Amino acid sequence: MSKIVGVIGGGQLARMMIPAAVNLGITLRVLAVTENEPAALAVTAYGSHLDLDAVAAFAETVDVVTFDHEHVPQSVLRELVARGVNVQPGPDPLQLAQDKLAMRERLAALGIPVPDWARVSDTDELAAFLADHGGSAVLKTPTGGYDGKGVRVVRDAAEAADWFAEADGKPLLVEELVEFRRELAQLVARRPSGELALWPVVESVQRDGVCAEVIAPAPNSAGKLADVAADIATTVAESLGVTGVLAVELFETTDDRLLVNELAMRPHNTGHWTLDGATTSQFEQHLRAVLDLPLGATGCRDEWSVMVNVLGGPTSDAISDRYDAAFADQPTVKFHFYDKQPRPGRKVGHVNAGGDDLDDVVYRARAAAAFFEN
Amino acid sequence: MSKIVGVIGGGQLARMMIPAAVNLGITLRVLAVTENEPAALAVTAYGSHLDLDAVAAFAETVDVVTFDHEHVPQSVLRELVARGVNVQPGPDPLQLAQDKLAMRERLAALGIPVPDWARVSDTDELAAFLADHGGSAVLKTPTGGYDGKGVRVVRDAAEAADWFAEADGKPLLVEELVEFRRELAQLVARRPSGELALWPVVESVQRDGVCAEVIAPAPNSAGKLADVAADIATTVAESLGVTGVLAVELFETTDDRLLVNELAMRPHNTGHWTLDGATTSQFEQHLRAVLDLPLGATGCRDEWSVMVNVLGGPTSDAISDRYDAAFADQPTVKFHFYDKQPRPGRKVGHVNAGGDDLDDVVYRARAAAAFFEN
Repeated sequence: MSKIVGVIGGGQLARMMIPAAVNLGITLRVLAVTENEPAALAVTAYGSHLDLDAVAAFAETVDVVTFDHEHVPQSVLRELVARGVNVQPGPDPLQLAQDKLAMRERLAALGIPVPDWARVSDTDELAAFLADHGGSAVLKTPTGGYDGKGVRVVRDAAEAADWFAEADGKPLLVEELVEFRRELAQLVARRPSGELALWPVVESVQRDGVCAEVIAPAPNSAGKLADVAADIATTVAESLGVTGVLAVELFETTDDRLLVNELAMRPHNTGHWTLDGATTSQFEQHLRAVLDLPLGATGCRDEWSVMVNVLGGPTSDAISDRYDAAFADQPTVKFHFYDKQPRPGRKVGHVNAGGDDLDDVVYRARAAAAFFEN
Repeated sequence: MSKIVGVIGGGQLARMMIPAAVNLGITLRVLAVTENEPAALAVTAYGSHLDLDAVAAFAETVDVVTFDHEHVPQSVLRELVARGVNVQPGPDPLQLAQDKLAMRERLAALGIPVPDWARVSDTDELAAFLADHGGSAVLKTPTGGYDGKGVRVVRDAAEAADWFAEADGKPLLVEELVEFRRELAQLVARRPSGELALWPVVESVQRDGVCAEVIAPAPNSAGKLADVAADIATTVAESLGVTGVLAVELFETTDDRLLVNELAMRPHNTGHWTLDGATTSQFEQHLRAVLDLPLGATGCRDEWSVMVNVLGGPTSDAISDRYDAAFADQPTVKFHFYDKQPRPGRKVGHVNAGGDDLDDVVYRARAAAAFFEN
């Protein structure tokens, strides 16, 4: 009998677990909300991740439950565990991925470097934080945000009155506006029994709050920077008991510190390069890890790997209408499409390139992705 | 709309097209005979490849029809084409893959080097061939053979009386017993519009008529040997009008000639190393080729790649019960399992290893595969 991994959510992360499952001879089952989601091929049940009955019925058909996203409510997760379901990662670590205030508190308690932050419940508290931090800060809704949503820069507390009204007494998270040189990401995978494997730290280039490009490894990261990033991710994964893939998004500050920005407890956009650039991809590693199987090697297959997201996609014609031109122009680039309808800003695919000359690798990846712009 | 490739047959070759299709954003549909075949995940219809109605109905749901095996009868193939179905490769080249006598005739007419051969209809004709070739030869049934089946060495014409009786007047193929140093395979992919891409020639180690190991590129093949192999495969692909992946199995004789042994017009066991060892795998390339899309780069990702088949598999426990030990021991090896029930001699999976030191790569691949022996 092959082992069965169940994924809650049918998005592109679940989709990209399919090739890894096929290769390893693992059965992948997906609980999706609707038809035609990116992971449709592996969907075996429909239902909302908010619906305990649907999730619990799905869980009975698999050996371990894992996730395409972090939106399964704590109430559902904890009931699954109470019923004896093997849930990886578990509710405790996921709570911190779901609640940025809880995450900040926990990381601070662990002594992990984070931006200055505070819990603010009204514009007065926000104004006080702004006054202490040079008049500007980043305000975040603790839950529900992603890809730049639920995040805004404020320079005057009054600007945020609408968010406080909407929060209805619940606190928001405010953070210093970090002066950073660049953003990095350190991905790690961890098994329930403790084994841990890290990929090299990468540089992530964001545009409009969305990951646009990733360079692996991060240029000029060998040595201390890589060691510190690895230490931080290891501490987070072990202290919080994360299983599966953990992405730790980091700021490299202009004064040479690394501060934890966000955590994601699942395969992550900053790890898509591993599909073609690492001995073991983050998707294969996630399956191994949640099944508590020995992890694969995480070395780079190329000196440089570059991932460029295909954001938005063409609206005048189909993505596949562009294959002829793109494939002919960039025969060495690996294309990944998610079978999603193009829409401005939407992640509909990505491309990976690799090689010895970073400038050339960046050029090829960007050139390939550019064929799919509107 | 994504492009839709339809595969007739649900075996491991169809299975291994799934990851490539997922990556490229291509929809794969498979016509299988029964449930639980290796490509079950992509099966959209059940029916026999011998049944014109089943095949024709399936063909209506896809943009192009291609194959997991070469057993679709000419009558079915030609009727599909007559009805306007896009069939790649087409009936003409497939006829030669299905009929070894027709293949020998055609290759000989093209001046491609092949072993001495003859069409023999009875033991007298066979005896004459044996007398001319040192008393031994290889007798083959022209159709239906694979993995050593339908092939036998004869040293006395009387030994073959049963086959002639079974053939009921139809001729058999007899070939000289080639004195070869080793077996090689040259894979090539070709688009209907003509573009062609070759992987490096590989060495294939056979045991009991079944491919056991592949080394890519073939040791000591750089230069003339690689050029001749590439020329032969190019001539075959272009002259016969093959589309998709073509595998040309070759003998390297003790007197330094290359002779064509067999042809396969589909992804082939000797190309499984490309899944992890080439920029574009044979499965991705096959999808690109049959859709007449520009082909991907075929360069090696490692200095040496070694594939070892998992033959038979464990019968005392499940394949997946061996994952713990195998994955822990060989973290750099890539495992591929086909979700097939173990049975002596059956191909149930393969492993790929890569690196700079051939001895080490061979060792790692063999060590990984050995965990799955009975």
